[in-house]
Amino acid sequence: MLTEDHVPCATVAFVKNRASEPTFDVVGVGHAIVDVVARVDDAFLAEWKLDKGSMALIDTDRAQRLYAAMPPAIEISGGSAANTTVGVASLGGSAAFIGRVSDDELGRVFAHDIRAAGVEFASAPAEGGTPTGRSLILVTPDAERTMNTYLGIGAEFRTSDVDPELIQQGRIVYVEGYLWDDVEAKAAIRHSMECAHQAGRLVALSLSDPFCVDRWRDEFVSLIDDCVDVLFGNADELRSMYQVDDIDKAIAIAKSHCQIVAATRGPAGSTVVSATESVTVPAPPVPHVVDTTGAGDLYAAGVLAGLARNLPLDVCAQLGHLAAGEVISHLGARPEVELGNDAKSILAASARA
Amino acid sequence: MLTEDHVPCATVAFVKNRASEPTFDVVGVGHAIVDVVARVDDAFLAEWKLDKGSMALIDTDRAQRLYAAMPPAIEISGGSAANTTVGVASLGGSAAFIGRVSDDELGRVFAHDIRAAGVEFASAPAEGGTPTGRSLILVTPDAERTMNTYLGIGAEFRTSDVDPELIQQGRIVYVEGYLWDDVEAKAAIRHSMECAHQAGRLVALSLSDPFCVDRWRDEFVSLIDDCVDVLFGNADELRSMYQVDDIDKAIAIAKSHCQIVAATRGPAGSTVVSATESVTVPAPPVPHVVDTTGAGDLYAAGVLAGLARNLPLDVCAQLGHLAAGEVISHLGARPEVELGNDAKSILAASARA
Repeated sequence: MLTEDHVPCATVAFVKNRASEPTFDVVGVGHAIVDVVARVDDAFLAEWKLDKGSMALIDTDRAQRLYAAMPPAIEISGGSAANTTVGVASLGGSAAFIGRVSDDELGRVFAHDIRAAGVEFASAPAEGGTPTGRSLILVTPDAERTMNTYLGIGAEFRTSDVDPELIQQGRIVYVEGYLWDDVEAKAAIRHSMECAHQAGRLVALSLSDPFCVDRWRDEFVSLIDDCVDVLFGNADELRSMYQVDDIDKAIAIAKSHCQIVAATRGPAGSTVVSATESVTVPAPPVPHVVDTTGAGDLYAAGVLAGLARNLPLDVCAQLGHLAAGEVISHLGARPEVELGNDAKSILAASARA
Repeated sequence: MLTEDHVPCATVAFVKNRASEPTFDVVGVGHAIVDVVARVDDAFLAEWKLDKGSMALIDTDRAQRLYAAMPPAIEISGGSAANTTVGVASLGGSAAFIGRVSDDELGRVFAHDIRAAGVEFASAPAEGGTPTGRSLILVTPDAERTMNTYLGIGAEFRTSDVDPELIQQGRIVYVEGYLWDDVEAKAAIRHSMECAHQAGRLVALSLSDPFCVDRWRDEFVSLIDDCVDVLFGNADELRSMYQVDDIDKAIAIAKSHCQIVAATRGPAGSTVVSATESVTVPAPPVPHVVDTTGAGDLYAAGVLAGLARNLPLDVCAQLGHLAAGEVISHLGARPEVELGNDAKSILAASARA
């Protein structure tokens, strides 16, 4: 859907500053996760003392106990940055993903699904018994999701897992903040970002989760200052990040630390700001919200797909809302339909305006 | 939902002829399968030379090649008789399931899901490396499903896997015809049926699939004559079974070989006949049919739940249509909601009539 000949947006013209023509619009770096999704009521969350809407890391023992207590579930490939790369491909862009799976059934499920979605996934499965990561996702009747993630091999993300050549083949490298939870992964993340910058690529980071921000606020401040061009966050994450009560204040502060900030505001839409421009775009209404898992991931997919093709910020935001709106209308965090035609309509409307 | 004090139906009063009070309404015996479900177009079926609507057994090599070619999928617990037991539990009945899983991730998924649905599942996971069975299910835009099953450990169903005590705890033992595809499983199936009859229980069999009937017609004739009280089949299966063009002729022949025949007729409903009674019950319309996987399994669940409680045949059929109608309205072969309240409404309406 995304055409090179669309009128470029001055604010993101720096994407053009690149060593050689990249192969992918987006290279995502994150946890390879298979989601185990079940519907529960609020009493279940209370019984297990779970913070609705958040992501908690859990160990093997708690994963087993929580799973045993859960209703029947379905397994769907997930992972935050992985979902984003699938979204980019669904929109008609090109994407690759870097993340660790094991040589087990869930690892094969993850690899199959992301490749079948058209995303390049070259990470070799690890042997040695640490299983592929999974997230026990509890969807309440209000469509909110509460995630309990056992990272498995995904937590063991190391510099040796980063292929600099692949990173440099992306116009934008996109890293999920969740990765920062492993102390040894931090060096690998910085390495990814440095590789990207060496080739003149853009670096994007998702704040992932307000609790994740709480855990790593100071380190995220340094990381964003040092390495991040495009920052993604929702209202809770950005307010927590910059310790202010107001999302617009948080966006203003964030803007002083990186080039583009893309902030989601729930059903109200999103705000995307650069040094010279600020757009707030309402989200089209979604008639029947079933499961909000992946909303932020797919919003990022739309914005990144747009930025990679130098589209205006308001078009980037519209692509984000398109992808997020589709994914929250069903169970699971990846698009069930190709989004390319709808993306073309957005581009056509923008060209006419 | 199903109350003991409902007016018993004379035609199935032989259920009362039992050694001691059974624990379960239904004990299902079948393949433990995890479904791998993806949406494809008709061209995909043509390319892979697949018979739409049927179940084909595939080996490891074809399973790997077909899976690699499939779009992104979701994993949902399945298995024909297993789905039926989950349906019985969802309707408010009690059920147990016997079937083989391995000590692997899909085996744990299967065991979790069936237990979480309220079905007793005591089969111990097998060790030794043969994986848990899976069915690659391709759902076309017309909601029809085409199944390609790699049985794995499920094919190794043996007499030692049959717990006579558990079998005898069921008012009805229900066996899926698919099991007959393994030559060594046949003895185990007959053993299950004999155990049930020793305790005065009913034995039910599903014909499963027209190709399955084709493969084993003569053996099925003997098995039904020797051991089967209640026979389930759709129009294709029953016509193939008795080599006639007309479903009513097939039902009439089947009736001479067993006590009750429950025949599904697609959207037109179903016919249930006994020695003294014959009812044809229309199926309530289902506004949006998404995936017909499990329609027959869930119809059987309703009929069995009714027969186990001595309900009239027309009520049994209505319970079958209720359960089948729910399961074809979404992806996957197991109910997404509890069916007990709707079942109660059917019983209440029947009591008033």
